[in-house]
Amino acid sequence: MNNSMEEEKSKALVELIYSWIQEAGSRIRSHLNEELTVSTKNGRDDIVTNVDKETQEFLIRKILEKFPEDKILAEENGLDRCLDMSGRVWIIDPIDGTLNFYFQRENFAVMLALYVDGIGKLGFIYNVMREELYWGGAEFGVYCNQTKLSAPKEPRLEDGLFGMNSAMYVQNTLHAHDIGIRTMGVRTSGCAGLEFISLLKGNTIGYISNLSPWDYAAGVVLSHEFGFISSQLNGCPLSFDGREYFLIATSPAYEEIKGKYIS
Amino acid sequence: MNNSMEEEKSKALVELIYSWIQEAGSRIRSHLNEELTVSTKNGRDDIVTNVDKETQEFLIRKILEKFPEDKILAEENGLDRCLDMSGRVWIIDPIDGTLNFYFQRENFAVMLALYVDGIGKLGFIYNVMREELYWGGAEFGVYCNQTKLSAPKEPRLEDGLFGMNSAMYVQNTLHAHDIGIRTMGVRTSGCAGLEFISLLKGNTIGYISNLSPWDYAAGVVLSHEFGFISSQLNGCPLSFDGREYFLIATSPAYEEIKGKYIS
Repeated sequence: MNNSMEEEKSKALVELIYSWIQEAGSRIRSHLNEELTVSTKNGRDDIVTNVDKETQEFLIRKILEKFPEDKILAEENGLDRCLDMSGRVWIIDPIDGTLNFYFQRENFAVMLALYVDGIGKLGFIYNVMREELYWGGAEFGVYCNQTKLSAPKEPRLEDGLFGMNSAMYVQNTLHAHDIGIRTMGVRTSGCAGLEFISLLKGNTIGYISNLSPWDYAAGVVLSHEFGFISSQLNGCPLSFDGREYFLIATSPAYEEIKGKYIS
Repeated sequence: MNNSMEEEKSKALVELIYSWIQEAGSRIRSHLNEELTVSTKNGRDDIVTNVDKETQEFLIRKILEKFPEDKILAEENGLDRCLDMSGRVWIIDPIDGTLNFYFQRENFAVMLALYVDGIGKLGFIYNVMREELYWGGAEFGVYCNQTKLSAPKEPRLEDGLFGMNSAMYVQNTLHAHDIGIRTMGVRTSGCAGLEFISLLKGNTIGYISNLSPWDYAAGVVLSHEFGFISSQLNGCPLSFDGREYFLIATSPAYEEIKGKYIS
């Protein structure tokens, strides 16, 4: 295929995924006034609802109808490991910020990413209640709905607000507190997707948390387009295998953290 | 005056204040793309901008044009003490969440309250960028814009999310951390006004922070309408004089905190 045919194919793929996520959002909104079925996973604050599960099933069905050979890595239903990232892998968080979804019926996101041979190609983060879909990748840049975004400034650590996992902040896990108090203030939303959106808008300059691959897969695709740098908080590359301490920050803030707090 | 005349007078007063706050919000939005003039107050993360000061001046001018004898308690320009709460006192936070305003241009609020002989009569919290004005008092109930709100459920401490000051959480100030970990999770927005809005919507069930009177004056008027209970975190009544450790929660959550953590 020549370049323009490749481009058309990529655009068509984006439009397809876009439509799936919009439909997933509509389905979620239609459940908002219903009683939810809730069960706990690893502890009383780690919950899953019937809507998480239904949304994941919906997205997987859409993906596999179109791409039956592709691999899936997803939060629910035992699809939470993918030992081989070769080929096309779809990474799904059907509802990111489930506690917010359950208690607030807002401040949550649907996230979907497409990785090919371990490289992030496309990322989608949908703030369902505000109907704001952040999407993009190396071929496109970053958009909110139909509007192309510009990269925010790249402040130093001491010149911006920082998204922070509250438990890691209290315990100073891998210097999370030392890092946080160097900033202008920490914020905790309870939703990784919203934290990535804050980065893309320039509202915050970094984010530290304890995340699984589906929590960061879409976010790193988008934020790398704007020059943010991510890794495990110990400096190792993200493993995409299980939960890990996660760091992302503007380039100057990342360098300062690396120099002072990562040995 | 008979009752219906009193009612008409109260309604007219609400409409007047409503129009002031809407206008204050429009003025703030018109500054959003300008460079702001910033100075620090008590430390590098305690900032004030020209827009805070102009907004406060605007609101005070409106109040004193109409009620020249009334007292003012306000965040900026040396109006931050009011030793005598007798008579009519207006309590103003021109921009609550100034760090969010400065760095994010969203997630801040204008707050205004009217107290008479120390009793909160009217409270207004305006989420300027979402154009949502929460207002009310004992004579009215609680509204968002023109829509009357219903009181949220009153969950126990362990059954809801909780707004939390991150420094108090880390230092376990007056058991702030002990209380936070009893809940389903803590959230930190950096704006007291948004925390009160979360309470009114039922998104959170309580809030602990280190607040000045203008940070809580409007919020307690509104949240008391919905049965929330507030005090200093040591159990003493709010003083309306200087910064204090602040607690508000649903009745069952407040009682649990009082029983277990306030000696």
